[in-house]
Amino acid sequence: MDFDTIAAISTPMGEGAIAIVRLSGDEAVRISDKIYKSPNGKKLADEKSHTIHYGHLIDPTTNEVVEEVMVSLMRGPKTFTREDVVEINCHGGIVSVNRVLQLVLRTGARLAEPGEFTKRAFLNGRIDLSQAEAVMDLIRAKTDRAMNVALGQMDGKLSKLIDQLRQALIETLAQVEVNIDYPEYDDVEEMTIPVLLEKCSWVREEIKKLLQTSSQGKILREGLSTVILGRPNVGKSSLLNSLVQENKAIVTDIAGTTRDIIEEYVNVRGVPLRLVDTAGIRETEDIVERIGVERSRQVLKEADLILLVLNAAEELSIEDERLFETIQSMDFIVVVNKTDLPRKIDLQKVIELANGRKVVTTSLLKEEGVIELEEAIAALFFEGQIESDDLTYVSNTRHISLLHQALDTISDAIEGAENGVPVDIVQIDVTRTWELLGEIVGDTVQESLINQLFSQFCLGK
Amino acid sequence: MDFDTIAAISTPMGEGAIAIVRLSGDEAVRISDKIYKSPNGKKLADEKSHTIHYGHLIDPTTNEVVEEVMVSLMRGPKTFTREDVVEINCHGGIVSVNRVLQLVLRTGARLAEPGEFTKRAFLNGRIDLSQAEAVMDLIRAKTDRAMNVALGQMDGKLSKLIDQLRQALIETLAQVEVNIDYPEYDDVEEMTIPVLLEKCSWVREEIKKLLQTSSQGKILREGLSTVILGRPNVGKSSLLNSLVQENKAIVTDIAGTTRDIIEEYVNVRGVPLRLVDTAGIRETEDIVERIGVERSRQVLKEADLILLVLNAAEELSIEDERLFETIQSMDFIVVVNKTDLPRKIDLQKVIELANGRKVVTTSLLKEEGVIELEEAIAALFFEGQIESDDLTYVSNTRHISLLHQALDTISDAIEGAENGVPVDIVQIDVTRTWELLGEIVGDTVQESLINQLFSQFCLGK
Repeated sequence: MDFDTIAAISTPMGEGAIAIVRLSGDEAVRISDKIYKSPNGKKLADEKSHTIHYGHLIDPTTNEVVEEVMVSLMRGPKTFTREDVVEINCHGGIVSVNRVLQLVLRTGARLAEPGEFTKRAFLNGRIDLSQAEAVMDLIRAKTDRAMNVALGQMDGKLSKLIDQLRQALIETLAQVEVNIDYPEYDDVEEMTIPVLLEKCSWVREEIKKLLQTSSQGKILREGLSTVILGRPNVGKSSLLNSLVQENKAIVTDIAGTTRDIIEEYVNVRGVPLRLVDTAGIRETEDIVERIGVERSRQVLKEADLILLVLNAAEELSIEDERLFETIQSMDFIVVVNKTDLPRKIDLQKVIELANGRKVVTTSLLKEEGVIELEEAIAALFFEGQIESDDLTYVSNTRHISLLHQALDTISDAIEGAENGVPVDIVQIDVTRTWELLGEIVGDTVQESLINQLFSQFCLGK
Repeated sequence: MDFDTIAAISTPMGEGAIAIVRLSGDEAVRISDKIYKSPNGKKLADEKSHTIHYGHLIDPTTNEVVEEVMVSLMRGPKTFTREDVVEINCHGGIVSVNRVLQLVLRTGARLAEPGEFTKRAFLNGRIDLSQAEAVMDLIRAKTDRAMNVALGQMDGKLSKLIDQLRQALIETLAQVEVNIDYPEYDDVEEMTIPVLLEKCSWVREEIKKLLQTSSQGKILREGLSTVILGRPNVGKSSLLNSLVQENKAIVTDIAGTTRDIIEEYVNVRGVPLRLVDTAGIRETEDIVERIGVERSRQVLKEADLILLVLNAAEELSIEDERLFETIQSMDFIVVVNKTDLPRKIDLQKVIELANGRKVVTTSLLKEEGVIELEEAIAALFFEGQIESDDLTYVSNTRHISLLHQALDTISDAIEGAENGVPVDIVQIDVTRTWELLGEIVGDTVQESLINQLFSQFCLGK
């Protein structure tokens, strides 16, 4: 395919030693040569592929030195995009890298859209859609396990499995076609149905197996949205701090300039906990009061896990019981804190209210009980889970939704075949399943969807 | 020199397309070869310098694939550190790049200290100390102008000037030595003093010129610490927002987990404004109340510029007058806001209280007056300033302090020579000046200082 030449900053924004401006496209080398000056005057166009060159970037309009750089030259097709790629390594720092980008854009490159490099890798056939999506998951991975899932998917693990299923379906369809095309044999149905049933049942089982991994896959990918709940002064911020300190916050997200909700990720035994509204907790020690009733209900509703903190040194209050009521249908763990003080709380009552959920006692002051809490969290979501790298996790919401649809259509096909529905009707469901699975790897997917998918990527990838 | 092999993440932390783990040292290639596997099985040790290679990182203990990577191989001495350098480009993302770093460290590299790569470039003689410091300034530069200053300094502009001055001093000293060594001539003093005076006076003038650029250089480098002050509801947060929006915030600093003070940088006509405690303003609209009297006085004391916001639709209150009193000895600009409402404020009185400082009227609601305010800010710090790239700015506090000391010692020398102090006494001051200037470029600097300096660098540089 023929594309224009794009450029973007490919390293995270911030202060660092090195930043990279990446160019991809037919003009990548020509544009770079207009602004790059090597000490010996040699042009990049005359250099070999996959080589690195020291030099300066010069603004051709003013002849001013813009930066001291290392330039990596990689000619297609053995590149990330399969196009010619030039990576300009400049000094880290926001002004520096922006100046380089601006210069490149003024010299003829177009600013890449988010994900456009990966999109080209997809459009140029180097990777399929599920692999492209894995690239993004890899970047966003919050734990080792999540990273392994993404790495496996990027390596084509999911793609291969999906391809096998689709292959089985297409063979079935071919068989059906042949039998339909030769209606002189009357035993079409008899010959076709058993084969069809066998193949389709196998596909259905495989889809089911994949879907079984999905809830855990999704947690690994997106983190477990966790809210720490409790009355003022029960120790919410102590709990937050001890989780963050013990496990080291992975990242602090600040969406734009709106600092209304701040999230922190902590890695609890491989489970990425996304702690919601940590700023609120830190500042006012009272999430419910701070964000208002309406808003707090929304936050609670979206949570995957609630940590309800109670004060062991006080009797259960009406507010405590009300909190139990609010979250009764959700996943929660009760943390009875301040066990270092004389106990006044009725533990039996707490266990009753917990209604089968885990109750952990802690003294955050004395750093006691945190390990038990972490074990409870991990157990809740990976109970009986054998950590196996061979497992192909489905973690992407889009994939999960497509697999659910495919499960429906293949089940329809099987049911139809079993109940004597004519083979050419059954065939429609099989074909639809084949298409749905194809959407996962991007084989039967529409352009608008592709555009939308890649727009969720970060800039420069 | 002979060093061990160091490694660090050299790109900013965060989500991005590409991250780099850099290794430097004799073992860089050997360590990389232990974990890197190319598709054709070729070792990096057998590849040419300054080439790029695709492949996978494999954990040698488990044989698991850790990442898909591009590896850049650069053999010394034509590298940043003059040592063998291997740069592992992996997928961006915090988990990914940390895994690569951990693998490299387990395989024999040592985690680099902050600034250690640049320190090696210095110790191995590729750059001098002022150039090394410029590397850091370049990364931290908040505006184009600041970047140009750093770029010039990194290019050796300041170093060359300092070397010239030191050369002049050493020639003078040599001359003095010769004359002292041949005391059979009685006209030593007569022969020596005029030459010494001429050279020393020239050096003094050059040092003075350099110091003249220093206050502006410092602002360019560190930003103008700016506090927005005013009673509640006068429009402080509107002012903050309009400055940030018009000029685009350059960076939001969040120091660790302490979110007590948040700073935002905005670029106002090349002047980097460091807006202090923007979170406080945004959240409570009242910095003074929020941070308490003691604390607010501290913040004010450290500010380079105060923007005092008044409400044009209200009469001047006692609080307003008290704010004027508090800041009377400081640089401030008065912003009379809400001119869209019927005016009640006594502008004449405001101008009196401003006592010569600029008074700007704005309607932030109608987006009026912000340009005038920005011009006032720029004029206050770069009045009559011809923007010249030829100017060598001194921006570093360490350099400024050394130049001040050098100015003192060279002045002592000149005064002494003029007042008939014996030449061998004058010589001591000249030598001291030569040493002080040498400290700027790192020629006569102590190891403890070097360690301290580089420890301020960011990791991976």
